Amino acid sequence: MRFFSDNAAPACPAVLSAIAGANTIDTAYDGDAWSARLDGAFSDLFETRVRALWVTTGTAANALALAALCPPHGSVICHRDAHIQNDECGAPEFYTHGAKLLLADGPGAKLTPDGIAAVAGGIRNDVHQVQPAAISITNATEYGLAYTPDEVAAIGDLARARGLGLHMDGARFANAIVHLGCAPADVTWRAGVDILSFGFVKNGGLSAEALIFFKPELADATLYRRKRAGHLLSKGRYIAAQILAMLDDDVWLANARAANGAAAALARAAGDRLVHPVQANELFLRVSAAEAAALRAQGFDFYDWAPGEIRLVTSWDQGEAFVAPLASAIAAL
Amino acid sequence: MRFFSDNAAPACPAVLSAIAGANTIDTAYDGDAWSARLDGAFSDLFETRVRALWVTTGTAANALALAALCPPHGSVICHRDAHIQNDECGAPEFYTHGAKLLLADGPGAKLTPDGIAAVAGGIRNDVHQVQPAAISITNATEYGLAYTPDEVAAIGDLARARGLGLHMDGARFANAIVHLGCAPADVTWRAGVDILSFGFVKNGGLSAEALIFFKPELADATLYRRKRAGHLLSKGRYIAAQILAMLDDDVWLANARAANGAAAALARAAGDRLVHPVQANELFLRVSAAEAAALRAQGFDFYDWAPGEIRLVTSWDQGEAFVAPLASAIAAL
Amino acid sequence: MRFFSDNAAPACPAVLSAIAGANTIDTAYDGDAWSARLDGAFSDLFETRVRALWVTTGTAANALALAALCPPHGSVICHRDAHIQNDECGAPEFYTHGAKLLLADGPGAKLTPDGIAAVAGGIRNDVHQVQPAAISITNATEYGLAYTPDEVAAIGDLARARGLGLHMDGARFANAIVHLGCAPADVTWRAGVDILSFGFVKNGGLSAEALIFFKPELADATLYRRKRAGHLLSKGRYIAAQILAMLDDDVWLANARAANGAAAALARAAGDRLVHPVQANELFLRVSAAEAAALRAQGFDFYDWAPGEIRLVTSWDQGEAFVAPLASAIAAL
Amino acid sequence: MRFFSDNAAPACPAVLSAIAGANTIDTAYDGDAWSARLDGAFSDLFETRVRALWVTTGTAANALALAALCPPHGSVICHRDAHIQNDECGAPEFYTHGAKLLLADGPGAKLTPDGIAAVAGGIRNDVHQVQPAAISITNATEYGLAYTPDEVAAIGDLARARGLGLHMDGARFANAIVHLGCAPADVTWRAGVDILSFGFVKNGGLSAEALIFFKPELADATLYRRKRAGHLLSKGRYIAAQILAMLDDDVWLANARAANGAAAALARAAGDRLVHPVQANELFLRVSAAEAAALRAQGFDFYDWAPGEIRLVTSWDQGEAFVAPLASAIAAL
Repeated sequence: MRFFSDNAAPACPAVLSAIAGANTIDTAYDGDAWSARLDGAFSDLFETRVRALWVTTGTAANALALAALCPPHGSVICHRDAHIQNDECGAPEFYTHGAKLLLADGPGAKLTPDGIAAVAGGIRNDVHQVQPAAISITNATEYGLAYTPDEVAAIGDLARARGLGLHMDGARFANAIVHLGCAPADVTWRAGVDILSFGFVKNGGLSAEALIFFKPELADATLYRRKRAGHLLSKGRYIAAQILAMLDDDVWLANARAANGAAAALARAAGDRLVHPVQANELFLRVSAAEAAALRAQGFDFYDWAPGEIRLVTSWDQGEAFVAPLASAIAAL
Repeated sequence: MRFFSDNAAPACPAVLSAIAGANTIDTAYDGDAWSARLDGAFSDLFETRVRALWVTTGTAANALALAALCPPHGSVICHRDAHIQNDECGAPEFYTHGAKLLLADGPGAKLTPDGIAAVAGGIRNDVHQVQPAAISITNATEYGLAYTPDEVAAIGDLARARGLGLHMDGARFANAIVHLGCAPADVTWRAGVDILSFGFVKNGGLSAEALIFFKPELADATLYRRKRAGHLLSKGRYIAAQILAMLDDDVWLANARAANGAAAALARAAGDRLVHPVQANELFLRVSAAEAAALRAQGFDFYDWAPGEIRLVTSWDQGEAFVAPLASAIAAL
Repeated sequence: MRFFSDNAAPACPAVLSAIAGANTIDTAYDGDAWSARLDGAFSDLFETRVRALWVTTGTAANALALAALCPPHGSVICHRDAHIQNDECGAPEFYTHGAKLLLADGPGAKLTPDGIAAVAGGIRNDVHQVQPAAISITNATEYGLAYTPDEVAAIGDLARARGLGLHMDGARFANAIVHLGCAPADVTWRAGVDILSFGFVKNGGLSAEALIFFKPELADATLYRRKRAGHLLSKGRYIAAQILAMLDDDVWLANARAANGAAAALARAAGDRLVHPVQANELFLRVSAAEAAALRAQGFDFYDWAPGEIRLVTSWDQGEAFVAPLASAIAAL
Repeated sequence: MRFFSDNAAPACPAVLSAIAGANTIDTAYDGDAWSARLDGAFSDLFETRVRALWVTTGTAANALALAALCPPHGSVICHRDAHIQNDECGAPEFYTHGAKLLLADGPGAKLTPDGIAAVAGGIRNDVHQVQPAAISITNATEYGLAYTPDEVAAIGDLARARGLGLHMDGARFANAIVHLGCAPADVTWRAGVDILSFGFVKNGGLSAEALIFFKPELADATLYRRKRAGHLLSKGRYIAAQILAMLDDDVWLANARAANGAAAALARAAGDRLVHPVQANELFLRVSAAEAAALRAQGFDFYDWAPGEIRLVTSWDQGEAFVAPLASAIAAL
């Protein structure tokens, strides 16, 4: 049983069906019937008019979002542990043509207005320094914590006050929403988010992510950037169809609920081994090397995150029952 | 019946099956079992050791190839009608960080050594001009013509003599090979090609193209560029599986044979209306506006290419029988 | 006697004096007293409020101007023989982060509305092609022809109608103004020019060019781009002082008048050997190889421009009397 | 009396004379007699064969050096307080096309092998992270400390062991050499430095810096990058002449000696107010707001560096006698 990452799980049945269902000739690129439904579907979901573009990876979604918010001579404030800083091989720098990421601190990979203000306040307002143009937060964070609507709104207020754009990396947005129980609008545009990378791949998708523009006009230039980056697939309908299939009947929520439930079950077993509260589908546990070896000997695989710390990630296809053996094994350590 | 482009056709059954067959957990990115087979499969096909990477679009394949061959302060010689010049929204410039495309002429979008030498010879060898670093040719060309092994070799010789890299955009490589009847090696590395964009999407794939490095060391930095561009899908196995499915049992050749056959049938009907010889799956016909309208009235759709000229593209799923009504309609004009 | 290029001539006395006169401590970068006078001096000269920045090269001026007018996914329409295309090693592509130059034709390196419209009209309005964002013209052109106010205005009208920015490369702006006898405003902002690269180096400056923004707001981001490109000299006063010295007492016009006068004298001697009318300080002459050799044997140096064609450029320090021996030699061929 | 920065001081007499002496026609760009002497002059100075290019700013020198050492998908390890990180508006990112700066710690803005190894060791060797390609150190540092030959050699050893390039930002290289009393070779190539930004502007130059390649082959592509960045002045001889004038008769050492001497005099007066040892021409002093005001009231100007801390920088034209009044004022606080 593998708990390396939710990005290795299979695609969910609705997604595979949707791909098969899209297997007919239609207009290329995003001129097809499925792509045409995205704006409406996400506008309904978010209770406001949005523009929505499909892309195939979260890295592309994030980098396109940042390029829409930050000029080459600007900078983006993000957490020191953010995916855009540590796991995208400089994609933000590539797409923004060299903007800087300015790194802020905060527990659990969560930014706070104070942390952001400390970074922004350290930048002199002159041409010798790259001026902040945007803030990027990850919800749920890289440590599986969910920003509440109030927490995002506090950052959103700061962003507006300083004239900064606000991007949310929602690779695990579904897991956050399931935890928060709020409307998707509450934690995004109502709280000041301008662009959301809405993840589907980690939640049962095959190769589809959505880029949601709460300021619709920001989508215009992004269409060119997407093509220019080689991300406008000619048979885009297969990407759009995956997304629509996961929005239909709230598959995206059901999938995230399953993964979160599995993580919660493991969290209960882990008790005070938990490094961070478990609010999504990631667990960070304090275990000794011998304990980690013992778990592996029982067939459980996962990452060593830091000395004495392991990371476990549950997936849409792993319910509570599925993870029960691991829960028992953890409890028995 | 739509003859706009082969990039709008459905995916072929083998591809859909392969996607379903890959729907199991495996290591993310390109650490999976399918991706691991690519180098070997293409090394076999090309009878030499190659490195092979999947990407999801031909634009990404082409741009990554050019970035591997040309520095930002260099230039790439290509045909004035090349896809990389006219249809990729500056992707080569984005990935190469601003290299120039130098445009050469030649009938049917085909480069010749003379045409290339004329362009290269016009560049002074000083720091005020971007120096040529690579040549890019398209096989089959944007007008559906296939370069023969000898024609490529002549360009390859020129490339070597001038120290230039040689890239082949093979969006319709399968169609060219079916026409040529040669070994894939003959028209690529044996003729001096360094990198091939091997297209699958236009030939029945869903979202898979292969980037083939005949100089394997060129793949190393490309791995970083691919990630940095957001093109390293986490569930890459679904992309690799499509490619392997089309290599198995020579599905790629069968598909191209069908499309080429349909085009040939239409070509016979078109007679001297043909603007270019038909060697792959594209036809360019001289028809008046009234004739074009007449064809459309019978339910056939296609592009107006130029005044008095239309373009028809056949697909893997359109055999001779399928296009017989169109052939009759053309013959009856 | 060397007639290779006006960019090799010495600096004029006023410039050297100004450098000496600026040799005192003052605030660094462009915070000094000289730099502070630029906006006012050029606003007076152009009879409208402008922003003016010094830079040290025409290439930097041009590239910064284009970066202010064209996004990375856009394109700039210029003449096939433009300096920005042929002599700047891709600086426009570097500064714009990969925008394309679209090449138009026209006699004497002059663009016409028809030539521009032909290029712009060939661009489909879709995301697959880089959309035109700006036009760049050179006045005087690379072949020494001056655009009249009416000619520029016709291009300016086209630019406005299509929503394009208009840049003028004025490496030899002074020579053009002397020929035209018009107000600098007439051939720039009154005719629709948004940004002017106002050249001083070829006209007796040492290392100073001015970037003039007729839309002052375009200067804001340029300040960052200039610094980011390493073009914000810490002792900028020496650059600003050169420019001010050449504006004072119309030194810039006197210098250009001398160079144009020398060219006119040579033109009279050359008669129908002239390839282009001589309106500035460049001459292109039809001479045989033997004739060229004969001139060189008499101590005159110049470029072979094309088979049977030579280029001669006169400088601010070469009046009619200075070039009289060359005029005689040409007449005697 | 202004002690803001040495970059605001006038140019020294030798430099102005050299500019006047170069005021004659010669071949443009760097084809002139002065530019031709640079390689030899610096090869002599450094006791090994080097290539040397002039540029007009330290920012351009640094950014060109980093572009020669680091690919767009790589990273450069530097100190958190480095000029390239904080004072160049992202020039390194612009010239490298988006490489990352990885920030290390160390007292007095000095890197140590341990600090570098800590940063490099935190980078996973996979395609998801930008791999370190170079190290950049500043000598003298931003806090006026000089790296000794041994200190540089320790970093050079680490660089070689990890396959990283080593760049030295020598904006105040002369001040460091005067302090160290070593041969310029000892603290550069003999210690593993690949490229040096050799500063002249802060040391009495007007607009000249030198880029020294101890691996001469690295200069080749830099020639194109320099032109492409608009940094190849047509009248380059005036830049080269400044450098040669400062090398002749060791003007560069005499100037730095004066500035260092002034700083040492101030340091003696400052006693334990010093935040850092004074090894070059910068002083950081602990003074209260009232004390700072008292100094200003006596006509001394300087930067407030941090709460309770001011920065004073002495220049080539300020000997001990010149700063005696300030020394007295500090001592009297």
